[in-house]
Amino acid sequence: MAKESTTIDIGEPSTVTKSSSHVAVDEKKKGFVAAAAGGGYKRGLTIFDFLLRLAAIGITIGASSVMFTAEETLPFFTQFLQFQAGYDDFPTFQFFVISIAIVASYLVLSLPFSIVSIVRPLAVVPRLILLISDTVVLTLTTAAAAAAAAIVYLAHNGNANTNWLPICQQFGDFCQATSTAVVAASISVVFFVLLIVISAIALKRH
Amino acid sequence: MAKESTTIDIGEPSTVTKSSSHVAVDEKKKGFVAAAAGGGYKRGLTIFDFLLRLAAIGITIGASSVMFTAEETLPFFTQFLQFQAGYDDFPTFQFFVISIAIVASYLVLSLPFSIVSIVRPLAVVPRLILLISDTVVLTLTTAAAAAAAAIVYLAHNGNANTNWLPICQQFGDFCQATSTAVVAASISVVFFVLLIVISAIALKRH
Repeated sequence: MAKESTTIDIGEPSTVTKSSSHVAVDEKKKGFVAAAAGGGYKRGLTIFDFLLRLAAIGITIGASSVMFTAEETLPFFTQFLQFQAGYDDFPTFQFFVISIAIVASYLVLSLPFSIVSIVRPLAVVPRLILLISDTVVLTLTTAAAAAAAAIVYLAHNGNANTNWLPICQQFGDFCQATSTAVVAASISVVFFVLLIVISAIALKRH
Repeated sequence: MAKESTTIDIGEPSTVTKSSSHVAVDEKKKGFVAAAAGGGYKRGLTIFDFLLRLAAIGITIGASSVMFTAEETLPFFTQFLQFQAGYDDFPTFQFFVISIAIVASYLVLSLPFSIVSIVRPLAVVPRLILLISDTVVLTLTTAAAAAAAAIVYLAHNGNANTNWLPICQQFGDFCQATSTAVVAASISVVFFVLLIVISAIALKRH
């Protein structure tokens, strides 16, 4: 009887170890499978994020340079005066050129973080950094686009109440270039909203 | 011997069940403690989120109504003309009033979602809905504030190149009211950025 109980005593700890380690391995395996599945779909998201950033870099550089080079000199002039319009005649357009250039540089600097997210789709810190800085830069882009849009609108239509006359009849090409830049900046605003949504989905649990 | 092995056989499954259930309970307990700790700190975040929304409602309603009521009639007039300025003389200011009013209504409608997040701090869906809609409304607020700021700047300083004269010498009170509205809207932009950051932190794993 004593021998019997000894065998049982020896048997028990061994089975406990075996069974608990078995449970642990099972849980680990389950977690690994879930991580791999989540990782796969999140890796797809991060690759889309990277491509969106590349597209946004192109669009912001385009917008900034179109606005920067927008200039028109009228073919007639008086003895003392030549009529010309450039982006630097409007403080709002200067703000536009500078801020959209800053946004383009930010996007280039954010590419490494995006690559880190592709390599490690479940990493939280680079995602969170991207989301917060994207949000801040989104406000800068939107502000530049909206302020320039208000001035472009005024250049096209003028304001009879304040006697601000439209200038687009004279400076048609200049107005067209500035409008193009505003539209391009607005498209990049949409891209930023998409980038933020992607980051939010990649951050969430489950 | 046969009896011995039987006892051992009976003993084994019982210990397996016991130990595995013990492990399961332990894991559950650990998970519960972690959820409670995470829940506590996330509940604090969501309460802050709710208070920020209340403050943003006040500020946006204030900004919209200050702009809406901005009006000034000059004390002198000619036989045919009385000089007055109102928000509806500027399409950009009309856009400002309408969009900031929409933002205020959105904030009121978002309060229930915020309350759900306070009650269930670990729920993912209301958080994600809040984050995405906050991002969209952030662009609307920023656009309205920036466009109005561009016009207010022009009203203050004019633009010599296009012969747009400043109107703030004549309509000082009107300019002051519109500037106040723009500043209030800019503060609400900061609130929205904070709200998005809070949602991102509340969404993230760990």
